[in-house]
Amino acid sequence: MINFQTSPDQYKHWKLSIDGPVATLTMDVQEDVTLAEGYKLKLNSYDLGVDIELADAIQRLRFEHPQVRAVVLTSLKPRIFCAGANIYMLGTSSHAFKVNFCKFTNETRCAIEDDSRHSGRRYIAALNGTASGGGYELAIACDEIYLVDDGNSAISLPEVPLLGVLPGTGGLTRLVDKRKVRRDRADVFSTLAEGLKGKRAKEWGLIDDYFPRSKFQESIDARVREIVDDVTRKGSEALDLDAGKPSQTNSLSYGIKLNPLQVEVKPAGLDYKYVTLVLNREQRYADLTMRGPEGAPQQTPAEIELAGDSYWPLQAYRELDDALLYLRVNEPEIGLICLRTQGEISNVMAIDHTLTANRDHWLVREIVLNMARVLRRLDLTAKSFFSIVEPESCFAGNLLELMLASDRSYMLNDPDKLVEIMTSELNAGALPMSNGLSRLQSRFLAEPEKAEATLARTEPFETAEAEAAGLITFAPDDLDWEDEIRVAIEERTSLSPDALTGMEASLRFAGPETMDTKIYGRLTAWQNWIFQRPNAVGPEGALTNYGKPTQAHFDYKRT
Amino acid sequence: MINFQTSPDQYKHWKLSIDGPVATLTMDVQEDVTLAEGYKLKLNSYDLGVDIELADAIQRLRFEHPQVRAVVLTSLKPRIFCAGANIYMLGTSSHAFKVNFCKFTNETRCAIEDDSRHSGRRYIAALNGTASGGGYELAIACDEIYLVDDGNSAISLPEVPLLGVLPGTGGLTRLVDKRKVRRDRADVFSTLAEGLKGKRAKEWGLIDDYFPRSKFQESIDARVREIVDDVTRKGSEALDLDAGKPSQTNSLSYGIKLNPLQVEVKPAGLDYKYVTLVLNREQRYADLTMRGPEGAPQQTPAEIELAGDSYWPLQAYRELDDALLYLRVNEPEIGLICLRTQGEISNVMAIDHTLTANRDHWLVREIVLNMARVLRRLDLTAKSFFSIVEPESCFAGNLLELMLASDRSYMLNDPDKLVEIMTSELNAGALPMSNGLSRLQSRFLAEPEKAEATLARTEPFETAEAEAAGLITFAPDDLDWEDEIRVAIEERTSLSPDALTGMEASLRFAGPETMDTKIYGRLTAWQNWIFQRPNAVGPEGALTNYGKPTQAHFDYKRT
Repeated sequence: MINFQTSPDQYKHWKLSIDGPVATLTMDVQEDVTLAEGYKLKLNSYDLGVDIELADAIQRLRFEHPQVRAVVLTSLKPRIFCAGANIYMLGTSSHAFKVNFCKFTNETRCAIEDDSRHSGRRYIAALNGTASGGGYELAIACDEIYLVDDGNSAISLPEVPLLGVLPGTGGLTRLVDKRKVRRDRADVFSTLAEGLKGKRAKEWGLIDDYFPRSKFQESIDARVREIVDDVTRKGSEALDLDAGKPSQTNSLSYGIKLNPLQVEVKPAGLDYKYVTLVLNREQRYADLTMRGPEGAPQQTPAEIELAGDSYWPLQAYRELDDALLYLRVNEPEIGLICLRTQGEISNVMAIDHTLTANRDHWLVREIVLNMARVLRRLDLTAKSFFSIVEPESCFAGNLLELMLASDRSYMLNDPDKLVEIMTSELNAGALPMSNGLSRLQSRFLAEPEKAEATLARTEPFETAEAEAAGLITFAPDDLDWEDEIRVAIEERTSLSPDALTGMEASLRFAGPETMDTKIYGRLTAWQNWIFQRPNAVGPEGALTNYGKPTQAHFDYKRT
Repeated sequence: MINFQTSPDQYKHWKLSIDGPVATLTMDVQEDVTLAEGYKLKLNSYDLGVDIELADAIQRLRFEHPQVRAVVLTSLKPRIFCAGANIYMLGTSSHAFKVNFCKFTNETRCAIEDDSRHSGRRYIAALNGTASGGGYELAIACDEIYLVDDGNSAISLPEVPLLGVLPGTGGLTRLVDKRKVRRDRADVFSTLAEGLKGKRAKEWGLIDDYFPRSKFQESIDARVREIVDDVTRKGSEALDLDAGKPSQTNSLSYGIKLNPLQVEVKPAGLDYKYVTLVLNREQRYADLTMRGPEGAPQQTPAEIELAGDSYWPLQAYRELDDALLYLRVNEPEIGLICLRTQGEISNVMAIDHTLTANRDHWLVREIVLNMARVLRRLDLTAKSFFSIVEPESCFAGNLLELMLASDRSYMLNDPDKLVEIMTSELNAGALPMSNGLSRLQSRFLAEPEKAEATLARTEPFETAEAEAAGLITFAPDDLDWEDEIRVAIEERTSLSPDALTGMEASLRFAGPETMDTKIYGRLTAWQNWIFQRPNAVGPEGALTNYGKPTQAHFDYKRT
């Protein structure tokens, strides 16, 4: 079982050091500390274990070190920044694992950009050696890229020429869409195994600058000082980064601690404090229940800081995130998740009111941004989601997003029992999808006025009202309820899992496209296609034969 | 060898009839007239041969019947409109053929929408029987959909539940992006093998209306009359549809004839009047040369109408289109096309000036829109394109788009020889890519002012100037020229064809996404992925076992 929880004291491959407003994330991958057998992580190449640490570090920066304004990514290895995803690991992994590995590493890089965009931290890739493949893709997820100029160090995307696959962690999309590199230059760069060094890399817009080795560290330091001054001055005003910071001017360190999640692993599921996952393995579906808050004792930022990571919207969503990752990687045969909630709608609403009222406080902002990321992780999970809305459920406000993120929803229609759902201020855009829209906007693309009307209503919706408002898919009555849910589950889990993955990826993201949706939709789909082509993974494929005395042989038919 | 040329007198599966401003396209597929062995085209199901006729009919409507304002698509078969792509044909086709088949059918449906958007013809799907799979996807490419209400006829997308593949002709994208059907309803519809009938289909936005069989024809006729009145009144003003129409008010019929292209098929290529294709099969690349116009004798719309389909911008681009389709389907091992031009820049410029000056004339508009479609076919062709710019070439104006559409360009740098390229008014947006941008805008996303400066220049660019302006990739000098081109070709054709297809699909379309790019990027890539999954095409796959006594068995691992 792959575990996604870690903390800096357990890191094997990264070092996180904090010096006032500057954090340094240093990559120093231990060759022999791998997640599976059969490969060594040479030259700062990575497997999922390495990336789990990176994801954890970025998450901790936001909650534990909010004073940090600049994050420098660099390497402890001489002459190499990072060689990208380990090729032997990829060559020996199943198709499904490769796909889920790439998805997680993509989410980690999008988390870097989310931090930069919404929390004003600037990420600087200090490439003190060669960055190839996923190494350059990590750099291009940062705001600025600096390369050492030593006659050897280069940046490259050698996947196409050496491995017969794509740079699968957003590289191609970010080349032309983020750095807006000219497409013919992007074409040349992406087919050039040896990559480019400082001068030309800068000229083509692939890096921001290059410095000789003797001046590399001081140049990076100088640039970081500039950034810190700049972000502190401009960024603080724009984003109100310091709201909630202790008023003592010499107190740089504030933040809350992210403690390990407590989870009980059972044969048929996981039990967290607010999340319970029950695996019905025979039937290939799971019930995932989120419990709402028990009252809303915290009302002020001070009380929220005091509660720290036990504050419901932080703890419950961290648990949900962990459960989703567990399901993706450890339970491939579970094809359908029935989302359920349990609790008082009024308690969820109280939480949302508190979050909205204090949205400018640094911790509240980070909590809401984290909820948004977890919900996007759900949108991007290649499993079907049905929401089951029953008495004593609390699909309200932030938890209503679970329902809106589902492929379908079923709401009991029973005149004798109270079944309600409700919107809060958080449904109005604070928890956007990857396409930049709220889930209500996405749902009502044809009738935007319905999204407005839904938000304007301050009362709960009973079943008939929810159906009339277009919020739910089906409203079976109490006589049909159990049968209808059972049949729906049976039907869904009988369908081709591959066709469902492609269908859901197409139907979930109507409307505008962003760099993120391009990465998860277009680029990922092409990579998945290539990841099963014989030219890559067959006995004579390039990925299979990399580093072996045998040579790749291609079927040259173009498709 | 598959031939893409046809004409109404040769149609086997469609009937095109014209009655004043109304055209009727009637589907009546002949079971036994198939493009390959091993299947029968029952129930108005189609193979590539059927779609080649449909594409031809739409093209002819634009040139031969410009007075048509409404096009009704319907069926001659009782109780069935169209059952979609023939499943046994798909089941017995190679992966590459399936992919190219879907691409062509997608282009045909996009051509319907292009006609509707730019030439104001409205397409009405008159579903006088069930439309399933590709049958409904054809309907959803139309502007309006009407279904007969007879207790039996339904619309459906049964690909996911019955075949384990996606509706691959734009259906999923058009459901949520064009008709903006709610995503949960789209999910239900796309997993419901039997589909939906009139009332619910209308309620969910899947059709526009439904009529009982006894009133079906008169209801369609009434709606068509409304549309014709409406388009004639409003549409004519907005689009100036009648510009160039003969002034005699009773003359409904104008238009030009599209005669068969004359092509000489040689062992190593094709020879048209303005296009020559030389296949270097051993080296897996082709040289495609377009010859520019011989002078510009036609200067007025009357002269252009007189020249008809022999007018250079129409004939040369029809030939290019045919050559591209030939290459896709008949020459899979050719991975690289070297694009070359031959002629006088001044002649190309004169053509572009004439087209621009008369852009509101119906025929000129159709000619330019056709050039744009052919260039988009090139963008979407899964082969690499290098432009080779040499003395006596004429990469100017519309032919400069070939260079801008290429993955790379090489321009000779020889002080003793004149090598030039040039922009015209047509590079400013008249020939847009699928993403809605001009190729200059796409190229200079980072520096839009460079696109402006390039367009503003009224002189040709010599090699050094072209390089400085960012218009070309490489400018080898005369000593290196031959070697550099040879090595570039060798390197490109040595790479994995699958990796190149995915890379080019990612790098060619930076910037905004449209419904078209979603269909060709996201949806197609997922479909291609599914088209090689064992759950679809393996011995136990759903596509393989459809209609057989054996049953599909899935590996239920989600990817």
